[in-house]
Amino acid sequence: MASKKFLPDDFLLNSPTARRLYTAHAAPQPIFDYHCHLPPDQIAANHQFKNLWAIWLAGDHYKWRAMRANGVPEELITGTTTSDYDKFLAWCRTVPLTFRNPLYHWSHLELRRYFGIDLIINEENAPKIWKLANEKLAKPEMSVHGILTKFKVAVVCTTDDPVDSLEHHIAIAKSGLKTRVFPTFRPDKALLVDKPAAFNPWVEQLAARSGIEIKHLASFLAALDDRHAFFHSLGGRVSDHGMEFIPWDECSDAEAAAIFDQARAGRAATPEQWTKFGAYIMLFFGRLDAKRGWTKQLHLGALRNNNARLLKRLGADAGVDSIGDFPQARTLARYLDTLDAAGELPKVVLYNLNPADNYVFATMCGNFGDGSIIGKLQFGSGWWFLDQKEAMEWQMNALSQLGLLSRFVGMLTDSRSFLSYVRHEYFRRILCNLIGNDVEAGLIPDDTKAVGDMVENICFNNASNFFGLEYGKFPGAGAKAAAKARPAAKGKPAAKAAKPAKKRR
Amino acid sequence: MASKKFLPDDFLLNSPTARRLYTAHAAPQPIFDYHCHLPPDQIAANHQFKNLWAIWLAGDHYKWRAMRANGVPEELITGTTTSDYDKFLAWCRTVPLTFRNPLYHWSHLELRRYFGIDLIINEENAPKIWKLANEKLAKPEMSVHGILTKFKVAVVCTTDDPVDSLEHHIAIAKSGLKTRVFPTFRPDKALLVDKPAAFNPWVEQLAARSGIEIKHLASFLAALDDRHAFFHSLGGRVSDHGMEFIPWDECSDAEAAAIFDQARAGRAATPEQWTKFGAYIMLFFGRLDAKRGWTKQLHLGALRNNNARLLKRLGADAGVDSIGDFPQARTLARYLDTLDAAGELPKVVLYNLNPADNYVFATMCGNFGDGSIIGKLQFGSGWWFLDQKEAMEWQMNALSQLGLLSRFVGMLTDSRSFLSYVRHEYFRRILCNLIGNDVEAGLIPDDTKAVGDMVENICFNNASNFFGLEYGKFPGAGAKAAAKARPAAKGKPAAKAAKPAKKRR
Amino acid sequence: MASKKFLPDDFLLNSPTARRLYTAHAAPQPIFDYHCHLPPDQIAANHQFKNLWAIWLAGDHYKWRAMRANGVPEELITGTTTSDYDKFLAWCRTVPLTFRNPLYHWSHLELRRYFGIDLIINEENAPKIWKLANEKLAKPEMSVHGILTKFKVAVVCTTDDPVDSLEHHIAIAKSGLKTRVFPTFRPDKALLVDKPAAFNPWVEQLAARSGIEIKHLASFLAALDDRHAFFHSLGGRVSDHGMEFIPWDECSDAEAAAIFDQARAGRAATPEQWTKFGAYIMLFFGRLDAKRGWTKQLHLGALRNNNARLLKRLGADAGVDSIGDFPQARTLARYLDTLDAAGELPKVVLYNLNPADNYVFATMCGNFGDGSIIGKLQFGSGWWFLDQKEAMEWQMNALSQLGLLSRFVGMLTDSRSFLSYVRHEYFRRILCNLIGNDVEAGLIPDDTKAVGDMVENICFNNASNFFGLEYGKFPGAGAKAAAKARPAAKGKPAAKAAKPAKKRR
Repeated sequence: MASKKFLPDDFLLNSPTARRLYTAHAAPQPIFDYHCHLPPDQIAANHQFKNLWAIWLAGDHYKWRAMRANGVPEELITGTTTSDYDKFLAWCRTVPLTFRNPLYHWSHLELRRYFGIDLIINEENAPKIWKLANEKLAKPEMSVHGILTKFKVAVVCTTDDPVDSLEHHIAIAKSGLKTRVFPTFRPDKALLVDKPAAFNPWVEQLAARSGIEIKHLASFLAALDDRHAFFHSLGGRVSDHGMEFIPWDECSDAEAAAIFDQARAGRAATPEQWTKFGAYIMLFFGRLDAKRGWTKQLHLGALRNNNARLLKRLGADAGVDSIGDFPQARTLARYLDTLDAAGELPKVVLYNLNPADNYVFATMCGNFGDGSIIGKLQFGSGWWFLDQKEAMEWQMNALSQLGLLSRFVGMLTDSRSFLSYVRHEYFRRILCNLIGNDVEAGLIPDDTKAVGDMVENICFNNASNFFGLEYGKFPGAGAKAAAKARPAAKGKPAAKAAKPAKKRR
Repeated sequence: MASKKFLPDDFLLNSPTARRLYTAHAAPQPIFDYHCHLPPDQIAANHQFKNLWAIWLAGDHYKWRAMRANGVPEELITGTTTSDYDKFLAWCRTVPLTFRNPLYHWSHLELRRYFGIDLIINEENAPKIWKLANEKLAKPEMSVHGILTKFKVAVVCTTDDPVDSLEHHIAIAKSGLKTRVFPTFRPDKALLVDKPAAFNPWVEQLAARSGIEIKHLASFLAALDDRHAFFHSLGGRVSDHGMEFIPWDECSDAEAAAIFDQARAGRAATPEQWTKFGAYIMLFFGRLDAKRGWTKQLHLGALRNNNARLLKRLGADAGVDSIGDFPQARTLARYLDTLDAAGELPKVVLYNLNPADNYVFATMCGNFGDGSIIGKLQFGSGWWFLDQKEAMEWQMNALSQLGLLSRFVGMLTDSRSFLSYVRHEYFRRILCNLIGNDVEAGLIPDDTKAVGDMVENICFNNASNFFGLEYGKFPGAGAKAAAKARPAAKGKPAAKAAKPAKKRR
Repeated sequence: MASKKFLPDDFLLNSPTARRLYTAHAAPQPIFDYHCHLPPDQIAANHQFKNLWAIWLAGDHYKWRAMRANGVPEELITGTTTSDYDKFLAWCRTVPLTFRNPLYHWSHLELRRYFGIDLIINEENAPKIWKLANEKLAKPEMSVHGILTKFKVAVVCTTDDPVDSLEHHIAIAKSGLKTRVFPTFRPDKALLVDKPAAFNPWVEQLAARSGIEIKHLASFLAALDDRHAFFHSLGGRVSDHGMEFIPWDECSDAEAAAIFDQARAGRAATPEQWTKFGAYIMLFFGRLDAKRGWTKQLHLGALRNNNARLLKRLGADAGVDSIGDFPQARTLARYLDTLDAAGELPKVVLYNLNPADNYVFATMCGNFGDGSIIGKLQFGSGWWFLDQKEAMEWQMNALSQLGLLSRFVGMLTDSRSFLSYVRHEYFRRILCNLIGNDVEAGLIPDDTKAVGDMVENICFNNASNFFGLEYGKFPGAGAKAAAKARPAAKGKPAAKAAKPAKKRR
């Protein structure tokens, strides 16, 4: 038996066509990272990481979960009294137990593509990996700006609270960084009327930041609009919401105002009131996005913070979240339809966390096209726990069977880590494999131009055209591709057929 | 690299055994289309379509959805002021964007199998396709009767309202058409007690059609029974219901009568009342089917008419429906069990629209076999959004693992279009591929007779035996196969073992 | 075409690496059957089955369901006036209709591996099979003890009511049987406060068996604790619960006591009361397991006894159960977290019956690792309807992508039949196929030792280490592997890293 070497050049690419598509069309594309959780301060400061633990493990709750499943004590995972090296070592001991988990591939790709380290990760190789990686980390090419440049990241959309000053984004825009970095408006705290202790300090911050005195609901909404406009002034064109499901009930202005006043007075909204207020404010946020031509992202279905012990110790995003099983379809449909009926539906990307909902979400996207733009509702790429081979294939197959894969805006990192750009490589291999195999099976015509264009569009051009984010100054291969992207896409027959109204852009 | 040509003769057939099964056993079978939405008036009139748009696009909401996802303005999709050719052209521009969607395969198969046009569909080829297809459409072989004959359609069951006069069915029966066309009793409007404005006019129609004065619930039920008997007199043996889920609650005759009277008086049933009445009337419909030896189809799980804008413009079935995520198992089980316990459970075909429910439905079918007939509860073939390769494989795999694929009544079109008979080819290829691959892997014995019979039974004979619809006059290959079907199946050991009671047939 | 013979030596093993892993590493492992429904009395008595029907069909509701789906009358399936041979014959007639169902493979493997009968099962071969099998059944090697020895079953955990005397377990422990047989504590009836007619007699039995007079809730809990301790004294270390879902609501001691008293007085708990009491008592059971270092199994998601006709005729477990679609995530999370926060979370194995919940359950397992033991929460192997190829692959893929397949405790039989040990062979082939194919694709390093260890651990060592059940006296290959298991696993780096606290063991 002659097994392939581990992660060979053509891994995940199971046919000649798949390999050709990846090499010629996918791999050269720059990266359009329209949703992530990278820290703007580290980008602004062009941060240089002190060691491999800091860049690789300090903030990666995927890896924490794997260590916990492996029985590693918390002190060796997130402990503050354990040395960085010992925590690194605990991870190296766990890696050999992650066969068939995406972490096994991601971790090795991270070492290879960023550090040029081609060693198998285990306890034995740990000292050597530590030394080689830390040497590399000291070099300018491994600064944050170096990394973004190396991976040809044309656009980064971070995730930001409306009360954020966006000072780091302002600083980044003034720096020489070619990657364009935009803020994303994520107002999850505006729904916390059921938790006045968290809601009210945030409302105060919002008032301070906007300079608008928030007395009642109307001024609250005005302040949110003000911040939305400020994000817009910095180039932001995307909002985001993380929710279990879309709340839905009829709610008049007067009802919403009363619930708001009640929360401001320190009395928590009841579940019924929360549902009403949630529906009301989400419609408001939909209108905000529509009026400024933005895209709204809805990340639905997570059951968060399930472990009170670790939540207390580490705060949110501690790696103790689950996939939920909430009913999604009916309230989501009502929400989108209410906006659409009023001519106030923005572009939308729908992400579901439970793969059992793939078909619900993929079909929902097909209900609201209105001729204003190609692919107005997008079925978002495999998110969080679904950002791995089998779930990405499910998402792309669902989108293929129920919608238009050709019009897919493709991959995002959704990551807190600057090492996650290898996930685009992973995604692109899986994409090319699916398409390439279909070509070889005679299920897609062997039309090199059409299929190559399709791959390039999904990898970069579709997102570039869809989100309306201004960039284009990226140098090198990225710039070339980026420059090519827009006219090429506009010249396509389908784009002509669509005659996008563009009035909202 | 040597890719296959697009849709080669053996597409979807990935092994020699699969190819042999398809060619020798599946392809020659006639079609038993036990559920569709073909318009009876067009069959009665032996309609000849005026052009390719009329037969291909005028009523196909699958294609409309793809165009909307591609950003095509509604006027170019369903507009009344746009020329047929321009709408056809908008579709030809969209087709190249549908790689990996079943529409890409269906559309090309429709042109090949019906029109003999082997061109790739795109803007460039559009004029030629339009010309060739329209020439062909003028010929008698492309009349409705010509099509049904060409595809050896032995049986068609249309979908009909109880208040329908069935005049077209009567006319068809008198025509020379060899395809037997039966009405299906679909009384969805009988549940509209929560919408008196729609319910009451329908009750009036029912009274007029049945000649029974409907004063209260008893006469309402009598009128429904009368229409059921009339459908029976025309050969109808199948009912159908399209519902989000089976409503379930205890409901006495008196409660149901009160809810009925209330709705007749123009006061809408509350949700609780609707649930009670729905459970009550569905039990009634179950008993109707049982007493006349019919089969009940339950199509569960669609979330319909999600776009008010297009619903208003186009009416229902505008292509703005989604897959829902309703709880199904408990109420479905209670419904079937209540009928079974009373000896009033008819044959049933269960269809789910959310593939996440496949295992729920497939196992539910296993609970109520009673020795009266082979495969009394059938897990229905992939429906609507699930009528494509991955979802048909899921359905057949679920049925295989949890029930008896051998006893499956197989494919139906569920279509409004006379061009949809190519979907049987699609289904049969997928079926033969699954079985053939298992034979080659040593997971099914390489018993040519047994495996070939299995394929033929799923393609035709099982449905023919199951539904008890009278036909048999179909000429040519169809007639031969049809004639062979019944005795062959009856002579099988398992059928002997089953000793079907047949008292209900 | 050269198809393989049916079920060849390498069936389900689609690559050379898969075949090597199976032959060298999986097949030689003994069996650690940590959950089943084998009858302890038959083990104690070293039962010898009277004929093939008795051991093969008398208690196998999987086969009954297949016959019912095939239209076989109940009298030929479970009838008491039909001869054993006629019932056997009805099954042989049905088997050829089960192509693609696991029963087709299981049934042939059962005849091959237990009886050495290599015939295709059908009506024609039935007389020969009956004769050969019955001759073999008369021999000592086919006694219960003979079977357990032949299949190298190191451990069996039966499923037992707390009121069971465990007399058979005591007898087994005194017999010469090398297989260690432990009771599992399954107190489902403790939740029946909504069914006083069933609850109260059971409470009486519990009082009698424990010798504790049960007046109120406190003595009820004391009696349950007493029985738990008794199970512990016989080596039991595992509990089990079969539930639709975990009930969850706040419930004080006083509320629980009142609900208990009410049920004891013959008044059924309301649904709300049942939820409260269920949550309360499940927390109690969690604490019991935690304090004695046990593992709790939660089998969630079955919708049972759906056919009143057959329930009445045959009692529970008549093969009329379905997969349910209950919301699971939120209450399960609250339950586990409440125990964890109090330091009272035992080791847990979570099984879901609806495969649509795979990702919910697999991610839930990742939330509660605490460094005390490797893989503290286990995502259980495909259960019941999921104990077949596609669903086992789904479960292993979900576990791989979302957790650590390497730490999986692997296969159990969950069966009432002594012939079910072939299911371990089936599982092991599927496991080796998945891993082997990944090695050949370059997705896992081709490290013979690491991959071989992984397979052996999943097949035996992980379960041996995890459950803390005392055995080790098994002779032959089993003993060798068993002896090797513990030190080998303990010596692994990851186990070192984990530093299991073991204080609960």
